[in-house]
Amino acid sequence: MQEITLGIDIGGTNSVFGLVDKNGEVLFREKVRTIDYDDPRQFVKFIADIIKDKLKTEFKDTQLKGIGIGAPNGNILEGTVEYPPNLKWKGITPLSNYFKEYFQVPVVLTNDANVAAVGEMMFGGANGIKDFVLLTLGTGLGSGLVVNGNLVYGHDGFAGELGHTSVYIERGRQCACGRKGCLETYVSANGIRRTLFELLAERLDESHLRNISFNEMTSEDIYKAAKKGDNIAREAFELTGQILGAKLADTVAHISPQAVFFYGGLAKSGDLILKPTKYYMEHYLMNTFKNKVDLYLSSLNDTDGAMVGAAATVWKEI
Amino acid sequence: MQEITLGIDIGGTNSVFGLVDKNGEVLFREKVRTIDYDDPRQFVKFIADIIKDKLKTEFKDTQLKGIGIGAPNGNILEGTVEYPPNLKWKGITPLSNYFKEYFQVPVVLTNDANVAAVGEMMFGGANGIKDFVLLTLGTGLGSGLVVNGNLVYGHDGFAGELGHTSVYIERGRQCACGRKGCLETYVSANGIRRTLFELLAERLDESHLRNISFNEMTSEDIYKAAKKGDNIAREAFELTGQILGAKLADTVAHISPQAVFFYGGLAKSGDLILKPTKYYMEHYLMNTFKNKVDLYLSSLNDTDGAMVGAAATVWKEI
Repeated sequence: MQEITLGIDIGGTNSVFGLVDKNGEVLFREKVRTIDYDDPRQFVKFIADIIKDKLKTEFKDTQLKGIGIGAPNGNILEGTVEYPPNLKWKGITPLSNYFKEYFQVPVVLTNDANVAAVGEMMFGGANGIKDFVLLTLGTGLGSGLVVNGNLVYGHDGFAGELGHTSVYIERGRQCACGRKGCLETYVSANGIRRTLFELLAERLDESHLRNISFNEMTSEDIYKAAKKGDNIAREAFELTGQILGAKLADTVAHISPQAVFFYGGLAKSGDLILKPTKYYMEHYLMNTFKNKVDLYLSSLNDTDGAMVGAAATVWKEI
Repeated sequence: MQEITLGIDIGGTNSVFGLVDKNGEVLFREKVRTIDYDDPRQFVKFIADIIKDKLKTEFKDTQLKGIGIGAPNGNILEGTVEYPPNLKWKGITPLSNYFKEYFQVPVVLTNDANVAAVGEMMFGGANGIKDFVLLTLGTGLGSGLVVNGNLVYGHDGFAGELGHTSVYIERGRQCACGRKGCLETYVSANGIRRTLFELLAERLDESHLRNISFNEMTSEDIYKAAKKGDNIAREAFELTGQILGAKLADTVAHISPQAVFFYGGLAKSGDLILKPTKYYMEHYLMNTFKNKVDLYLSSLNDTDGAMVGAAATVWKEI
C-alpha cells in the first residue's frame, strides 16, 4: 500500500494543503483562505473533511502516515502556533491536537521556513548538503538552519529567527516584533520598500517610483524598475544585499554552512538580490570562511514547495 | 582493564596534557611550554615520550582508547591546526597524524572552545543540557556551540567563531583577523583593555589605572579596580557586558540555547561581567526568547578543564 502524508503550509492570507508521496510528488492539492477563519477549529475541520473524503475515495488504496504543518510561530515541541503576528488566531493554538481529533497519525508542526528547509533538503538543491541555511524572503524574513543534516530547533523549538538579529544595536528601523534594527526591517519585501523610500528622500534621481505611494508600492514594482535601469531601485537592491551579506557573514561564523538558499517573493528578483549579497558576504567573512559558501535560489516550486516540505517533515522527524 | 584517554589542551604559551578516565578523573597531568617548540614534531615527541613511558609503567594496567586535542584553529575534519595566529607553527600542521606515528589509537582534534564545551557537557554545568553555548573569554573570544547534544562543526569543521561576528558593520575596532568591529575586539581580556583606554580618554574621573601603560595593563588590573569601586573600570565592564549581551541576543536567535557558559580569564570577573551581559541580553532579545536563557560561569577547573574536555571528546566523537 502506497504511503502518503498530508502537508499543510499555513500563510497569513492563504494556506495550501495536499497529499504527497515519499518522492515529493503531489497527488492532491487544495487551497483555503486562512484569513476567513477566525476559529482555527473550523479551519482544521475544513481541511479534515476534504482529506477524509479523499482518503475514502480516490486514495482509498493509500495509507496516511502522518501530517506535516508549516505555520508562522509554529512550535515543534508543543505542536502549537504561538502568538502569530500575521494570523487571526490569538494566543496559543494547539493545532496538532486539533488535527489529531480527525486523524490517528503523528503530526509534526514547525515554522514555515523550517518546512521549506526540509523540502529543499529532500527534494531540492540542498539534497546531499548537510549544513545549510534557507531564508524565506517574503513580507518578513524567515529562516531554517540545518546542521549536520538536521533542523536546528533549539531548546524551546523556536531557533532560526535570523530576521530578528540586529543590523544595528539599539537603533535602526522599528520592527513589528517590538525591537529596533532587526534584519527583516531591511531585508524582506517590506524592508526593501523602506530602503527605497529612504533613497527617494535622500537622492534627486528621477524615478517613476516617485509616483507610487508607500502603501501601493510592492517589491515587484522595485524589481521591475531595477530591471529597467532605475538608479534608485538598483541602489535599493544593492543596499539590501549589503546588509544581508554582512549578517550572513555572522551566520556563517556561527554554523559554517556550505550553502544558503533563498525562497519566497523577494528571492524571485534573482541576481538583483543574490549578486550584491554574495559580494558583500564574501567581503565581510573572516578569511577562514571565504570562498566556501554558495548562495542559491531555492529550487522549490513557488506555489506548493513549502507544502511539499511540510509533508516531508513527517518522514524526516518521525 | 581500565579505559583511559589522553587529553591535550594547546595554548599559545603553555599546553597541558594528561591521562583521564571516563569520569573525567585526571590520573596524570603535565605541562609543556608550547612556545619553546618551533617544530610541532618535537612538541609531539616530547608528549609522546612521556606518555609512552607512563603507559608502560605506572599505567600498564590501563588501555589508551584515544587522544583528544584542543588547539587554536583546530580542524576536526582534517585533524590539522591551520594558520593559528597565536602559535609559532606556520601554515597547516597535521597534528593528528604526528600523534598517530606514536599511538595506534583514534585522534580527535578540534578548537579549544569546542573541547571546553565537551568538558562542560560531560563533567560540568551543562550536564543534561542539549542546547548551549560555551564562551572562552581569554586574550580573544572563542566559542563552542552545542545543538541537540552535539557540537556544531559546520561543513568545514570551523563553525563557532562568535569572536568574529560583527558588533559594527564595516567600522569599529581593528581585529587581528583583518576585519573591523569583531566581537572579540570588545569582549575579551584584550577588548576590555581597549574599552578602558577609550574611557580614560573620554572621561575625567580620577583612576589609578591612569598610571598603567597599555602594554602593562591586564584585565585583572581592571577587575581589581572595579572591585574597589573605580568608576572607569566599572564602566568598562558595563560596556563589555552591553556589547556581549547584544550579540548573544543574535546567537539566541540562531540556535536558541538553554544556557551560555563563560570560561577563561575574563570570566573570573564573575558578576562584574555576567550581570551586565544578562541584563543587556534580555533587553535585546525578541519576546519569544526572553527569560529563557541562563548564563553561568563554567564549572570546569581553571588549569586543566580544557584538557579534561579534550580527553572527553574521544568518548563523545568516536
